[in-house]
Amino acid sequence: MEFSSKLLEQAVNEMAQLPGIGKRTALRLVLHLLRQPQEQTRFLTEALTQMREQMKFCTSCHTLSDVEVCSICSNPARNHHVICVVEDVRDVMAIENTQQFKGIYHVLGGKISPIDGIGPSQLHIASLVEKVKTTAVEEVIFALSSTMEGDTTNFYIYKQIQDTGVKTSTIARGIAVGDELEYADEVTLGRSILHRIPFENSLKNN
Amino acid sequence: MEFSSKLLEQAVNEMAQLPGIGKRTALRLVLHLLRQPQEQTRFLTEALTQMREQMKFCTSCHTLSDVEVCSICSNPARNHHVICVVEDVRDVMAIENTQQFKGIYHVLGGKISPIDGIGPSQLHIASLVEKVKTTAVEEVIFALSSTMEGDTTNFYIYKQIQDTGVKTSTIARGIAVGDELEYADEVTLGRSILHRIPFENSLKNN
Ligand SMILES: [Zn+2]
Ligand SMILES: [Zn+2]
Repeated sequence: MEFSSKLLEQAVNEMAQLPGIGKRTALRLVLHLLRQPQEQTRFLTEALTQMREQMKFCTSCHTLSDVEVCSICSNPARNHHVICVVEDVRDVMAIENTQQFKGIYHVLGGKISPIDGIGPSQLHIASLVEKVKTTAVEEVIFALSSTMEGDTTNFYIYKQIQDTGVKTSTIARGIAVGDELEYADEVTLGRSILHRIPFENSLKNN
Repeated sequence: MEFSSKLLEQAVNEMAQLPGIGKRTALRLVLHLLRQPQEQTRFLTEALTQMREQMKFCTSCHTLSDVEVCSICSNPARNHHVICVVEDVRDVMAIENTQQFKGIYHVLGGKISPIDGIGPSQLHIASLVEKVKTTAVEEVIFALSSTMEGDTTNFYIYKQIQDTGVKTSTIARGIAVGDELEYADEVTLGRSILHRIPFENSLKNN
């Protein structure tokens, strides 16, 4: 691409760093901002800067939060004895949208994936096991997507908390096998939370 | 969408203001920035801010420029007697990429489109007519995409400069009718500049 302006070139190059945004798309987005009032660019850049610099992770469940302990973990009306284990904050948002779950979450930050070099120590697994062993947890619900990595991660955690006698379950597979949780429709996802099955049963079906 | 964080919600909402970026995509992009080093967000926001606040339009051809008169208009090696009329800066970039054109440009900033409420006065047409009438212009090349709006705009300008006796041409239609200029491959677009035909001839073919 031949740019008539260094300012334009720089903006396009930075925008094209974002995943799935090619140079042509970046140019289209940047030219759009030029046609809009200056404040639209200011609102966008300020929101991104504030988010990136001030965002915290909940010290209890590791989800994204504006404060030390997130609004779910600090809510006494939630059932703190039921923990739903998810991959990332998008899954928390997806399940909250169903309004079917009144427990709390534990965000792993990913799935065990030897191919991508992600081992258990890079995920928030130890703090989950610790929580199960030291607090009055009654049930752990595995809500990772049912890919090979998800199944591996579920099983790894299951082995570590099996001897505590805590109840384990996985969300019902109303969701197509292999599908990402975040793209499921609310009704299906809500139902799969309600119809969760004991984790041992899910092993037999595989 | 249920957000666990106002900072996240704000960033997603601002990102989703961009054309073609829905809330899900915005969330994906914003979470990507959170996983990257802080400086990536800083580089992006600084580039966008600088661009939006410092970008100028060339006072001669109206293309985007970092300075008062763009590098093409201020280049004595270019042929200032041949003006290529285009819709926006992307078309300038596309034609410059072909390295087939040594004249200068005139960026209209759009096409006449009564449906979108865009009339001749909202485009840089008057300054083009003025330039043709007061400087030693030998040829005006119409390089708008051959949509109805493009044809209307070409014809509107043609009527205004017809009596000056300046040569008018349109780029050869190696490019499929109705296609956007910026998506054409370089060879086709370069050839269509070289094989431009007198504008009167293009009227007969319609
Ligand atoms: Zn929390
Ligand atoms: Zn210029």
